[in-house]
Amino acid sequence: MSRQQNEKLAPKAVILLSGGLDSTTTLAVARSQGFECYCLSFNYGQRLQQELEKAKIIAKLAGASRHLILNVDLNKIGGSALTDNIEVPKGRDLDNHDEIPITYVPARNTIFLSHALAWAEVLEANDIFIGVNAVDYSGYPDCRPEFIKAFTKMANLGTKRGDADQQFKINTPLISMTKGEIIKLGFELDVDYSQTHSCYDPAGQLACGKCDACLLRLQGFADAGVTDPVKYK
Amino acid sequence: MSRQQNEKLAPKAVILLSGGLDSTTTLAVARSQGFECYCLSFNYGQRLQQELEKAKIIAKLAGASRHLILNVDLNKIGGSALTDNIEVPKGRDLDNHDEIPITYVPARNTIFLSHALAWAEVLEANDIFIGVNAVDYSGYPDCRPEFIKAFTKMANLGTKRGDADQQFKINTPLISMTKGEIIKLGFELDVDYSQTHSCYDPAGQLACGKCDACLLRLQGFADAGVTDPVKYK
Repeated sequence: MSRQQNEKLAPKAVILLSGGLDSTTTLAVARSQGFECYCLSFNYGQRLQQELEKAKIIAKLAGASRHLILNVDLNKIGGSALTDNIEVPKGRDLDNHDEIPITYVPARNTIFLSHALAWAEVLEANDIFIGVNAVDYSGYPDCRPEFIKAFTKMANLGTKRGDADQQFKINTPLISMTKGEIIKLGFELDVDYSQTHSCYDPAGQLACGKCDACLLRLQGFADAGVTDPVKYK
Repeated sequence: MSRQQNEKLAPKAVILLSGGLDSTTTLAVARSQGFECYCLSFNYGQRLQQELEKAKIIAKLAGASRHLILNVDLNKIGGSALTDNIEVPKGRDLDNHDEIPITYVPARNTIFLSHALAWAEVLEANDIFIGVNAVDYSGYPDCRPEFIKAFTKMANLGTKRGDADQQFKINTPLISMTKGEIIKLGFELDVDYSQTHSCYDPAGQLACGKCDACLLRLQGFADAGVTDPVKYK
């Protein structure tokens, strides 16, 4: 195991960082576990370029060794309210898990994790962190534990490093936590949530307070018994 | 099954098309099986931009319904002779399958297939075609049947369409064929190999004849008993 061989060096990890609440907390968890953090963000034609600006600040605050921003052409593929000109739904019933919402971006986590895998292989890192959550999630299939397990198996079969028995691990520290638990954990780890961005449909610097992401976030802060430092309209 | 519901419409398929011999033959196979073909190529900072020009011609000649070229930032990730300024090896022993060559691009097929999956989901296509080959291959782990099987499982767990029981299939018609058999099949399907590009290190329009890709191609044409229409230096 390379971690044992290099006891004096912190092991490297690639952290998928969107600039949202979950990925920012995930980065704090990776740091608290002693990883040297390589943050990876994507410019994917998302309507919210301010997400990327927040991600840059968050990576810097967390002392990341590097923050790589890659362009991916998801807007040319289309099919989502987050990349197309489709209206973001408001006031949706979040308990309805049968329906996959229009904010779902086809195969997004697969594409993001694939890039993280490539970078981890080049960095000689075994660990990838992603802030997926299967409890208070929006009904996205690519946030489920079964998906993460299947991705890990595929990753180890499809890479030079996986083939050489340096097994990749996809770390999902938040996967079984409620939003309230995630926020409590973040406070324990001194996460500055004022820098995080969640809203799918903000007006300038103000979050809408009504889209799935805002509803989940507000409920999470209420459950955690703390005040959300982000401003709402 | 959507194919049965739409008997009069040809089923759609996404075809990964590099402009090389294998992907061009794969496209011909998909056409011969009655698929409406949506070709997908990538601009990934590869040193050989002429590959993409060839791919455009090949998609047009094959009557593809659409040819989408996506940008991916593999050159920012690095780690390969095909994306970095690393010398392409010449005259390598192709029977040495223990060594993964420096032309291996980390997680490339995972990244390419992930984009194909996203597009297939938007197009409502169940089929993806990729020209991987596990016989006369260059020793890349992401060309093996086990990798394709693991990718398929992951794809069906991580997408809305897979979740809705419209199972994705990754078609690999060439996976157990020798290069000679692939070329024979291509001739039967009227593939114009003069438009295909294989060389990793061409001089202008001339192939080098010495890199892994040229050596495999030349041996394949010799085995098939036909003349390679491409010019070598």
